[in-house]
Amino acid sequence: MSITVPAGFRLSGVRSGIKQDATKEDLTLIVADAAAVAAGVYTQNLVYAAPVAVDRQRTPTAEFRVLVANSGNANACTGQRGLEDAEQMARLAAEACGADSSQALVMSTGIIGHFLPMDKIANGIRQAANALGSDEAAFLAAARGILTTDKGLKIAARELQIGDHTIRLAGMAKGAGMIGPRMATMLAVVLTDAPLAVDDAQTALTTAVGDSFNCISVEGHTSTNDTLLLLASGEAGGRPLAGDDLAAFQAALNGLCIELARMIPDDGEGATHLITIEIQGAASRDDAMRIARAIADSALVKTAIAGGDPNWGRIVSAAGYSGATLDPDRLSLSINGTRLFSHGGPVDFDAPAVSRSIRDNRETHLLLELAEGAADLRFWTSDLTTDYVRFNADYHT
Amino acid sequence: MSITVPAGFRLSGVRSGIKQDATKEDLTLIVADAAAVAAGVYTQNLVYAAPVAVDRQRTPTAEFRVLVANSGNANACTGQRGLEDAEQMARLAAEACGADSSQALVMSTGIIGHFLPMDKIANGIRQAANALGSDEAAFLAAARGILTTDKGLKIAARELQIGDHTIRLAGMAKGAGMIGPRMATMLAVVLTDAPLAVDDAQTALTTAVGDSFNCISVEGHTSTNDTLLLLASGEAGGRPLAGDDLAAFQAALNGLCIELARMIPDDGEGATHLITIEIQGAASRDDAMRIARAIADSALVKTAIAGGDPNWGRIVSAAGYSGATLDPDRLSLSINGTRLFSHGGPVDFDAPAVSRSIRDNRETHLLLELAEGAADLRFWTSDLTTDYVRFNADYHT
Repeated sequence: MSITVPAGFRLSGVRSGIKQDATKEDLTLIVADAAAVAAGVYTQNLVYAAPVAVDRQRTPTAEFRVLVANSGNANACTGQRGLEDAEQMARLAAEACGADSSQALVMSTGIIGHFLPMDKIANGIRQAANALGSDEAAFLAAARGILTTDKGLKIAARELQIGDHTIRLAGMAKGAGMIGPRMATMLAVVLTDAPLAVDDAQTALTTAVGDSFNCISVEGHTSTNDTLLLLASGEAGGRPLAGDDLAAFQAALNGLCIELARMIPDDGEGATHLITIEIQGAASRDDAMRIARAIADSALVKTAIAGGDPNWGRIVSAAGYSGATLDPDRLSLSINGTRLFSHGGPVDFDAPAVSRSIRDNRETHLLLELAEGAADLRFWTSDLTTDYVRFNADYHT
Repeated sequence: MSITVPAGFRLSGVRSGIKQDATKEDLTLIVADAAAVAAGVYTQNLVYAAPVAVDRQRTPTAEFRVLVANSGNANACTGQRGLEDAEQMARLAAEACGADSSQALVMSTGIIGHFLPMDKIANGIRQAANALGSDEAAFLAAARGILTTDKGLKIAARELQIGDHTIRLAGMAKGAGMIGPRMATMLAVVLTDAPLAVDDAQTALTTAVGDSFNCISVEGHTSTNDTLLLLASGEAGGRPLAGDDLAAFQAALNGLCIELARMIPDDGEGATHLITIEIQGAASRDDAMRIARAIADSALVKTAIAGGDPNWGRIVSAAGYSGATLDPDRLSLSINGTRLFSHGGPVDFDAPAVSRSIRDNRETHLLLELAEGAADLRFWTSDLTTDYVRFNADYHT
């Protein structure tokens, strides 16, 4: 994939020394050349990290200038000192690019409960300010700077033509564990040069998150640091998007967010399968979400897929305890296109063939049909393997 | 432990051939010599098994005569035929002991989505009716007949003196996986010779379940078959318990149910730790339950305990997304008696010592103090190990 950085932004990713691995970038800077629009959505966890507290107060805004993000330390559960550190981090980033402190946003991800090494952060910011660029290499370095246990980069881009103007979107995300977003994901940033009014930017982002980052989980544990930002420079030119143009932008943003969001469970810690849970005919969207989450968060469902077992009883029973309205006699389930359970009763099916279709493919598709109403939803999760357990049991604070 | 069977009951456990393992009992019969009181609590899963449908209609009752239970097949998600099979199973058990069909209750546990082998069930019931006894050996055989993946027997007993009468309680339970009861547990039966009015029996059981079987989980997956029955013969003599006597019985029943309930996560599939989650000072009991369940069901918390890691960030963040009211700045956490997080901030502690205390003990004690209100709760769960994943990924339908 080739990424063109949306006009009006410069980026960098450097190694400040927060992470132990000497080969890994751990600090990212994203600078808007002039005041830009920034919208954000954040974790709903009541125990939220200091950088979330700072950004939540400062977005949405039309005065954004700089985002500084670090990996290796979440600055969460760090009390008053943590909050002061996050504000200081924002101030240092603003100073490094000639902006006002209030124009800076900050993100952190990594271990919970440790204070930020502020000397390393300060050095990293100076280094990053000298490394800013607007080419693909700069974008990739910035995308690497926010990764933790991710196996690879999570980036996506879109381009659309609106009148005479070419509008670009480019996004980056991170996350592989502690993924059960209720409002956003671990960390993700979408850059665009679209001209957007502040309120429209916030609405567009909130809309996009509903079907993307809010529809993924790894183990359902909502992080303290989930943050998704949309940064819009307006450098593509033209008047603030409205009407059909705004709708076209929204569609592009939705598609980009879904593409980024799916990458997270696909890279779930220890995962061998990306599981798509498709809910059709729920009584309401809330019900569809409850059912999808109950299935996605069931260790029994996740281990069955890991083992290539078309164990439909575990899936149907998870739907049953989800809290959603459902009549078992109207319920049907298919795995990878084969119907296993139909209108409340078991059906004969070729179990070895379905098992093979699970084993032989990275993606598993579960389709649950409820016939209760008109609400549909797609949700993505990862399977649960011994590698997930080993990874998280061996990880030490 | 020595068990005296409460007066008025005979039991047996036999092998009918439902389970593949030729050394395992798989059918249990419990007969009351005369009409007895039976109260029940059942799964809240909307996808509930046929035997649950039958028993729910028939309890509470003062006309109970016989309970037949099988392991190896859950008779769940089996539609109309499954319901007819459960009714037929009850009828066969009633006939074998000269009772009316409506006086019989039925329990099933095992694989979901397969029809009961009714010929084996019928033979098993005949065999079990000829093997009834009222000694400890009969009780133990009956307790074995309901086990599935359990590593050992789950039994408990109490004795109390009320006036001139010695009242006995004896209980049995099964369950090691698919444990996230919302109303009862997989399968459990408590026998007593106490004289109890029907309504008092139901109330006593519903009360006891609140602090016992509703306060455990293995992976939080609520089963389709959860059933807890209290069978009271009245053979201890005396008038129906009331006032202080009923309160004394309630206390004994509570203690017995907690003892049985704890055995389930202690024997959780692959478990190496029994984790007690103690919540103090929640705003309400519902809030305390939400927090306890969020912690208990977090794969990140469970793997941390498996790895002997005092990873308090995972525990505190689980409380934060539980949906309960809490102010992080009032929150404190201790593990095995050591304070790790105090009023919203990290504290210095001897991490290797706490890690050792987790590794060296079967039980881990988590104490979360909220200072939001007066609600306290204890909840028990198991850790999450590679053995759990292996067991449930290798299990095949």
